[in-house]
Amino acid sequence: MVGTNADDEDRFGYVTPENLGLFTDLYELTMLQGYHAADHDPQATFSLFFRRLPTDRGFVVAAGLEQALTYIETLSFGERAIDYLRNRGFDEDFLARLADFEFTGRVRALPEGTPVFPDEPLLEVTAPIFEAQLFETLVLNQVGFQTLVATKAARMREAVERYGDDQSLVDFGSRRAHGTDAGMKAARAAVIGGFDGTSLVAAGEAFSLPVYGTMAHSWVQSFENEREAFETFLEQYHEDTILLVDTYDTVEGAKLAMDVAENHDAEVGVRLDSGDLAPLSNEVAEIVDGRPIFVSSGMDEYKIADFLRDGGVATGFGPGTALTTSRDAPSLDLVYKLTEIERDGEMRPSMKLSSGKVTYPGAKSVRRVGDGGYEKDVLALRGEDVAGEEQLVTIFEDGDRVADSPELGAIADRAGTRRRKLPDDCRELRSPGTYPVEISDGLRQLTNDVEAELEAR
Amino acid sequence: MVGTNADDEDRFGYVTPENLGLFTDLYELTMLQGYHAADHDPQATFSLFFRRLPTDRGFVVAAGLEQALTYIETLSFGERAIDYLRNRGFDEDFLARLADFEFTGRVRALPEGTPVFPDEPLLEVTAPIFEAQLFETLVLNQVGFQTLVATKAARMREAVERYGDDQSLVDFGSRRAHGTDAGMKAARAAVIGGFDGTSLVAAGEAFSLPVYGTMAHSWVQSFENEREAFETFLEQYHEDTILLVDTYDTVEGAKLAMDVAENHDAEVGVRLDSGDLAPLSNEVAEIVDGRPIFVSSGMDEYKIADFLRDGGVATGFGPGTALTTSRDAPSLDLVYKLTEIERDGEMRPSMKLSSGKVTYPGAKSVRRVGDGGYEKDVLALRGEDVAGEEQLVTIFEDGDRVADSPELGAIADRAGTRRRKLPDDCRELRSPGTYPVEISDGLRQLTNDVEAELEAR
Repeated sequence: MVGTNADDEDRFGYVTPENLGLFTDLYELTMLQGYHAADHDPQATFSLFFRRLPTDRGFVVAAGLEQALTYIETLSFGERAIDYLRNRGFDEDFLARLADFEFTGRVRALPEGTPVFPDEPLLEVTAPIFEAQLFETLVLNQVGFQTLVATKAARMREAVERYGDDQSLVDFGSRRAHGTDAGMKAARAAVIGGFDGTSLVAAGEAFSLPVYGTMAHSWVQSFENEREAFETFLEQYHEDTILLVDTYDTVEGAKLAMDVAENHDAEVGVRLDSGDLAPLSNEVAEIVDGRPIFVSSGMDEYKIADFLRDGGVATGFGPGTALTTSRDAPSLDLVYKLTEIERDGEMRPSMKLSSGKVTYPGAKSVRRVGDGGYEKDVLALRGEDVAGEEQLVTIFEDGDRVADSPELGAIADRAGTRRRKLPDDCRELRSPGTYPVEISDGLRQLTNDVEAELEAR
Repeated sequence: MVGTNADDEDRFGYVTPENLGLFTDLYELTMLQGYHAADHDPQATFSLFFRRLPTDRGFVVAAGLEQALTYIETLSFGERAIDYLRNRGFDEDFLARLADFEFTGRVRALPEGTPVFPDEPLLEVTAPIFEAQLFETLVLNQVGFQTLVATKAARMREAVERYGDDQSLVDFGSRRAHGTDAGMKAARAAVIGGFDGTSLVAAGEAFSLPVYGTMAHSWVQSFENEREAFETFLEQYHEDTILLVDTYDTVEGAKLAMDVAENHDAEVGVRLDSGDLAPLSNEVAEIVDGRPIFVSSGMDEYKIADFLRDGGVATGFGPGTALTTSRDAPSLDLVYKLTEIERDGEMRPSMKLSSGKVTYPGAKSVRRVGDGGYEKDVLALRGEDVAGEEQLVTIFEDGDRVADSPELGAIADRAGTRRRKLPDDCRELRSPGTYPVEISDGLRQLTNDVEAELEAR
């Protein structure tokens, strides 16, 4: 065999615990070495938040915190990482400190599954700046993307709740996800948002998710004809299986599926993957007579809603590309900003002055007001006396984990329950209403004070 | 410490060589077990292609083939994977075959960096269907995304070539990439498309890429004032460094940077990350007098072109979100379709009949016509006598790797040279012209014949 001499890990470019410490923008390490050399290590609070909701989103669903917290808890720099940084010219003294890296601070977070609005911290890290600074790149990378996918999934669940019969939803999008990690985490985030499972086996294994899938067009094409293809399949799989019926002609395929199923005494549903789906599903429904019809052609929340409003008949949908890429909103402007810094032994609020962008200073409290249904949030200072239920939970204190990770099922339940407590209009699929987030008196006053102080310089 | 008992790999959800075999849609394994049980293992050819170019793209740049080929070459099912599948009810006989999985077929591919057009195979796998079928999910996952990012990068390189001075381009987008694998592969694909490097340290390490980065706003905010922040930084880093000057007031920040640099006898450039960039860069240019100005605020090919046409002054750009998410085109409709199948000992062309979607049957040849500049492509049957240079290269033959992986630098050169050989109008950033891809007589005839045969059934 010819080929490169690099080993497979290098050629594939895996990120594993051995090099995860290097999954950071270089400037974090440049700054850390600078802090270290200058013996400048004040306590700092960084806040993870976004300033604007993506297109057509009235809320987003927090997700990816579990991986961010695992990272904070386990981050270390192994020999391979240290060697690489040494070759780049970092100092031995700094590298020795990195090799001993351990988190000693506090983390507060919105639990996964919580609906979130602009300016509300999804995560707040308070620690020596040497520690808190370092987390930026990976925390943004994991939380931003999973939050987008959980939100997209929640919108599809909303669509089947509003216009359908709460049909099953299965993630079919690993092939179009942006890389392997995205495929894995999209499957997880989809379940948080309200999906029933995924087609991705590795995600099923890693996160204990239900996994679904039977056949592709290539199965059918690989046999002499469709009948032989269906017969061969049902000889293996008789129970609760799905035949793909649109390889040649959907209606004829559905009839054939029923015929072959009867001969094999098999429980069979059908999958439609092309065509004018709403009318086609009605034709097929007459043929399959109450058996499952699974629809998987380019589905998203808009197409699901249209399909159902047009009288389409389906027992489940398999959204793919639109789900795992969050296609109409592939990015969230999530940022990780310094909001407090220690000066002369005291924590002081901090912000930058930037045209058009407000970063509220100080450690925060997110209060949600309303019992049966949510009425509004109040974004306040930590410890400020305001109404509503505190949404932020303390996860680490003095570097120790003090809160368990909930099971994925519990996270999904939380997401569903809380989504349904949001005002109806902010859950609309298009041009949703704005959920009110008030800025507390204390936070407003502090923001004005810090701004005035900066401008007076 | 409280917390779950799952180990860190499970909690983070890593994909590594140990579970990469499970990075597949369940239906692939269901079909494989079906083929195995039915002793149905004809030779098959699968073709990887897309049917439509994404919005505003006149071409895409092939990327991600290296990871797809590494996967084909090294794919195996370890104990953990086999155990999981056993628990899901797969048969022992099938699992024994999976545990011995090895690729024995042929692969032809368009080398990374090649401009590609609709219907042209990026990859063609010919092997027993048990092998060729299995690759679908991961090959789509790696090639689709990297191709999008390499294309987005090439468009930004095109923008600085057209409207600027071929400025440097650095990937700043790992934080907004969809997961860790996307961050890594986006850095790699960006370099293929024409970028100079990345901010992501792990990608620098894995793929030997230049890595860049100095400071964030939090560095500046963590000190009593901007002067102290700049001074402390330059005490550590005197040479060829960049100060971020927009934390409080960009123009004042730039003046301060120059003042502090002079005091420290340091070589300093500045980075602008907010504001009305073109006019601001001109103000700053007068202050920094020929030193580097790096611009990094929400850049993409359109904003770079506008900035340069508006007379903005910059020596480099740091695009982030738009690059790593391919924001205006986050998905490519890449598919992996059966185009040939063995019947009675002979390879026969295969296609499915689907409204509005053509899948050309048979193994292909992609011919590119034109010496100085490219004039057109001809999509033909493999072995058909047509003009033009064959673009597909044989990478595996009888399961053996017969072609080396080029170095990344050579791939990037290929991408640049070939992009510039494309007609000018198909490289326009908006509403580009259509590059002609002709269907050869042989391929057209075969397509008609297969279609007629299917319809006659």
